[in-house]
Amino acid sequence: MLTGRAHRTPVLTCAAIDERCGAELYFKCENFQKAGAFKIRGATNAVFALSDEAAKAGVVTHSSGNFAGALALAARWRGIKATVVMPENSPTVKCDAVRGYGGEIAFCKPTLEARETGAAEVVAKTGATFLHPYNDNTVIAGQGTAALELIEDVPALDALIAPVGGGGLLSGCAIAATALEPGIRVLGAEPAGADDAQRSLAADRILPSVNPATIADGLRTSLGSLTFPILKSLVSEILLVEEHEIIQAMRLIWERMKIVVEPSSAVPLAALLNRLPADLSGKRIGIVVSGGNVDLEALPWLK
Amino acid sequence: MLTGRAHRTPVLTCAAIDERCGAELYFKCENFQKAGAFKIRGATNAVFALSDEAAKAGVVTHSSGNFAGALALAARWRGIKATVVMPENSPTVKCDAVRGYGGEIAFCKPTLEARETGAAEVVAKTGATFLHPYNDNTVIAGQGTAALELIEDVPALDALIAPVGGGGLLSGCAIAATALEPGIRVLGAEPAGADDAQRSLAADRILPSVNPATIADGLRTSLGSLTFPILKSLVSEILLVEEHEIIQAMRLIWERMKIVVEPSSAVPLAALLNRLPADLSGKRIGIVVSGGNVDLEALPWLK
Repeated sequence: MLTGRAHRTPVLTCAAIDERCGAELYFKCENFQKAGAFKIRGATNAVFALSDEAAKAGVVTHSSGNFAGALALAARWRGIKATVVMPENSPTVKCDAVRGYGGEIAFCKPTLEARETGAAEVVAKTGATFLHPYNDNTVIAGQGTAALELIEDVPALDALIAPVGGGGLLSGCAIAATALEPGIRVLGAEPAGADDAQRSLAADRILPSVNPATIADGLRTSLGSLTFPILKSLVSEILLVEEHEIIQAMRLIWERMKIVVEPSSAVPLAALLNRLPADLSGKRIGIVVSGGNVDLEALPWLK
Repeated sequence: MLTGRAHRTPVLTCAAIDERCGAELYFKCENFQKAGAFKIRGATNAVFALSDEAAKAGVVTHSSGNFAGALALAARWRGIKATVVMPENSPTVKCDAVRGYGGEIAFCKPTLEARETGAAEVVAKTGATFLHPYNDNTVIAGQGTAALELIEDVPALDALIAPVGGGGLLSGCAIAATALEPGIRVLGAEPAGADDAQRSLAADRILPSVNPATIADGLRTSLGSLTFPILKSLVSEILLVEEHEIIQAMRLIWERMKIVVEPSSAVPLAALLNRLPADLSGKRIGIVVSGGNVDLEALPWLK
């Protein structure tokens, strides 16, 4: 369903960063993806998995981030209507992306409850199908194609690391990676200021983020009922990073790799640069670079 | 000589920019090249073309830009010494690049005369071979490999456009492109504030830049005795761009393509966006993106 729609993104390497990290890194560049992030994979998979009957009534989600634009674009590809419930304080650039792809915005108060109520109202009124940004099996499966392509392009990876917010990307990639590359170790990385995945896995139950504080705006969400058990069974560990480490890694990627990535994308590299597990030293590690949607007026190292 | 040393850089496309431009654009991404710019191609070709006897005494050039670091790296690959004569007001980042690759810097006053005298002194003292950053046939041939790879990867290009400063990149690419793709049209692009190539071709003699004024710091140099006749015979036209057009095109590349490019690299796209020749509308055009060495603290749209 993705072929001819989502890009098969390139895998880049960087000798200077490898040297600094002490491992062989392979960057799967989802910042080059359609709509600027991996989210289009899951959105497309979910939208095209709908029956014609269901699709006719359109789709709805709530998101203030990259899934909003991705769903609007995927719906346009299928020729159906997408409504995105967005907090009224969402960045203009994200709203413009949704409208640019032909999506409709329903604004709500900036709380999770208001978002969920808003989406339920659209479903009740229009019969649209609600698609959760990450706690949805077709979305998770779609995100996993990033790891699938990476493993096809780079054989014999020892490990794979992805950022974890709600866990859609990491759980999809963990499923694909462990199926295709037996013995591969899958790691997650998240900001210390939004460490719900690490805490949840340690406590063996979902402990949602409360007031997550991080510039990695894609990683402020909490694990869902579908992503939590997948991470629990397939992910070996979640590494935490500090804010200054995220900014440093983000800048290093821009300077040495010459690519534009958003803060969330720099979290796995920040983890490997500062907290590389000793037994991964010198190993071949795949990194999913999640997206490149960043405000070029407000770069974090200029603040 | 380049295989296994310089990167074979990828060719990227961008549907959003194609739509805005009204042509099919293929970006040869030399910003991903070793040392961050196409210059390593010419430097490597020139350094490895030396006899063992000549190589032993080392190489010397004068440059305050990307050729400085490139020559230092190419010399390191051959295991010989490189000396770069640099104006004493050169940016720290450029000096660091030379030293980082093991090159030696000889500082001089910031005039062309002082640079040339400085280089001649090194030659007299050490017997090193002087390699001009662009007015050298082995350098020109090396730069042409960027077009060679682009044409191998993207068949049936109607046109190719590259920025022109001293003309090394454009003349090398013009030779390679017209040899490999008969009938291809080769264009140059330069800032209106450093329009020596356009004026020189119109006057049929080299008219050097006097006080060139442009943020495209790689394009302030003037044509040389070897590059001028090549451009004269193989390049159909030089398009000029204004400074605000360079900044706008640079930002568009960052935002939509998610790659970091320096101002000089944005000049050809600026030309096509604002001054696309009517008969190239809808055509397949290759663009050489020259480099990505930019100061991330001083982005031109933040000034």
